Amino acid sequence: MSRYWSETARSLTPYVPGEQPKLSNLVKLNTNENPYGPSPKALAAIRNATNEDLRLYPDPEGSRLRAAIAANFGNIAPEQVFVGNSSDEVLAHVFLALLKHGQPVLFPDITYSFYPVYCQRYGIAYETIPLTDRFEIRRDDYLRANGGIIFPNPNAPTGRALPLTDIRHIAARNPDSVVVIDEAYVDFGAESAIALVNEYPNLLAVHTLSKSRSLAGLRVGYAIGDAQLIEGLSRVKNSFNSYPLDRLALAGACAAIEDREWFERTRQAVIQTRGRLTADLENLGFEVIPSTANFIFTRHPRHDAAELAQQLRRRNIIVRHFRQPRIEQYLRITIGTQEQCNLLVAAFREIVL
Amino acid sequence: MSRYWSETARSLTPYVPGEQPKLSNLVKLNTNENPYGPSPKALAAIRNATNEDLRLYPDPEGSRLRAAIAANFGNIAPEQVFVGNSSDEVLAHVFLALLKHGQPVLFPDITYSFYPVYCQRYGIAYETIPLTDRFEIRRDDYLRANGGIIFPNPNAPTGRALPLTDIRHIAARNPDSVVVIDEAYVDFGAESAIALVNEYPNLLAVHTLSKSRSLAGLRVGYAIGDAQLIEGLSRVKNSFNSYPLDRLALAGACAAIEDREWFERTRQAVIQTRGRLTADLENLGFEVIPSTANFIFTRHPRHDAAELAQQLRRRNIIVRHFRQPRIEQYLRITIGTQEQCNLLVAAFREIVL
Repeated sequence: MSRYWSETARSLTPYVPGEQPKLSNLVKLNTNENPYGPSPKALAAIRNATNEDLRLYPDPEGSRLRAAIAANFGNIAPEQVFVGNSSDEVLAHVFLALLKHGQPVLFPDITYSFYPVYCQRYGIAYETIPLTDRFEIRRDDYLRANGGIIFPNPNAPTGRALPLTDIRHIAARNPDSVVVIDEAYVDFGAESAIALVNEYPNLLAVHTLSKSRSLAGLRVGYAIGDAQLIEGLSRVKNSFNSYPLDRLALAGACAAIEDREWFERTRQAVIQTRGRLTADLENLGFEVIPSTANFIFTRHPRHDAAELAQQLRRRNIIVRHFRQPRIEQYLRITIGTQEQCNLLVAAFREIVL
Repeated sequence: MSRYWSETARSLTPYVPGEQPKLSNLVKLNTNENPYGPSPKALAAIRNATNEDLRLYPDPEGSRLRAAIAANFGNIAPEQVFVGNSSDEVLAHVFLALLKHGQPVLFPDITYSFYPVYCQRYGIAYETIPLTDRFEIRRDDYLRANGGIIFPNPNAPTGRALPLTDIRHIAARNPDSVVVIDEAYVDFGAESAIALVNEYPNLLAVHTLSKSRSLAGLRVGYAIGDAQLIEGLSRVKNSFNSYPLDRLALAGACAAIEDREWFERTRQAVIQTRGRLTADLENLGFEVIPSTANFIFTRHPRHDAAELAQQLRRRNIIVRHFRQPRIEQYLRITIGTQEQCNLLVAAFREIVL
């Protein structure tokens, strides 16, 4: 603590990202990275942009990328797309631009742990709404007075998704506040709210290229919604950093979005492996929450989760464990390659049987 | 204006970056880009990092880059280095973490126009201190009550530098507040306050790789100061975006910092061209403010600046003109290659003679 720190800097509890160990030889299933690598076309586009034009500023509007994203979804205009340095940065701007109002923001008690950090940073009141005992979001819990609503769909770290009818219900019954659906994991089997944004001017969907496009190392995210919501985000972004996306990120992201074949093939592979891993773990006595994400959330009725994580680590496998009420007996496990998942299952077999 | 915008989003006047025209064939002297291109070693390092590891998150701490920057300066430890997505992002965090206190922040009336935008964004009071008629910062003007002090050295858009003795004076006489020296242009001939940060725990120097490292397209900046100031910045950064620097930016920035030979050669070339351009313009009757930056700030006693900028544009040369009191008769002109500067001088010769 320093006397030079502002009250904000003093009072914050910063977000703690998942561990990024510098060891190789690890089966790294702790931060929901995609095991298949990015589109080769994205890598080629980056190499192609690695030239002396890096002396020049990038396009501050990211116009080409916004057009590529809009085209990918069909009935979306580029003015309905906001791009940023990861979905975390996009979310940071969303909180300041669209969720800071008089009433508290609502989000689930078990959810992405960055949300309360954003609220602290910007001095936004919030209320957490308990998930059901089966970790479900109940749509009618979100019909109380609020300054905005946000949750991931599928939710993190549970992996459970809400159907589009429930999203519609929440957006329609909250016409005065912005409803943000954080769709970081949506491409692994849930329904995207982008299908509804032309109907509900208060609905915003946030995406990342870190998961289904396998570009966690490139830092690109975006939001899609009514053009007025996007303009609000742009205003706030342009009071922070004019060019958060560098030339290489813009080039790589465009190519990744446009390579639909790679996207389809790799996400289907993840979905398939998730199915097998779920069955394998259930055979070992694990309870697995139904997942539409690239991870599963699971517990074993006879083994302590922290202890399981420890035992895995001794075998060079890392998964994520949250020391947090209600979920301290669960592990969040990223879907790796089939081979990695086989190693995980073999390790669990030794540990739990 | 939308009812979904927060009070902050409504009340902001966003920063307007210099124009990034999509036309080629322009002599682009409007946004202070380096004409020589980045270090070939930086380009090679980026190509080398363009592989399937992009599926993995980057190091959130940027440890290797911080070590490279520290080593570059000698008596600086990695804990004294904060890295971010451009010096603009670094400055945004500086305002929230270190300059938001009860008293107003002080900065010059003519300076980087992003400062008041940051203040608006974070609700920070500020007071502008007039430069002298010759656009000088008077050190004793900064000895009044304040919540922090910030100015570029050399100042933008004037190009005028303050000697280190004056920086020392300001830091020493303001032990209770943070003094931020924005050194975006320092490598083109001014003295860096990094030499003083081990003496003054309230002194912070902010750098960018956009200018003297010719990497405006890569978005990397950093701050150097006491480890406690850096920790305050990290707390605030980790409440915004854990990984603002992607893997390619980290790799390219490291290599650029380590290639001292390219850095020396290209900055000396800019300094040399600046000297010739200054002489050439003075021969045409221009008044040129003494510059230690990679741009000059100049006016012609018999020609309106906006009109001059227009005339240049018709000849495919763009420079920056600010419609702002006190400086509306000046042009800010980036130092291009000698060839580009010759084209500029030839155009001016047609226009003013």
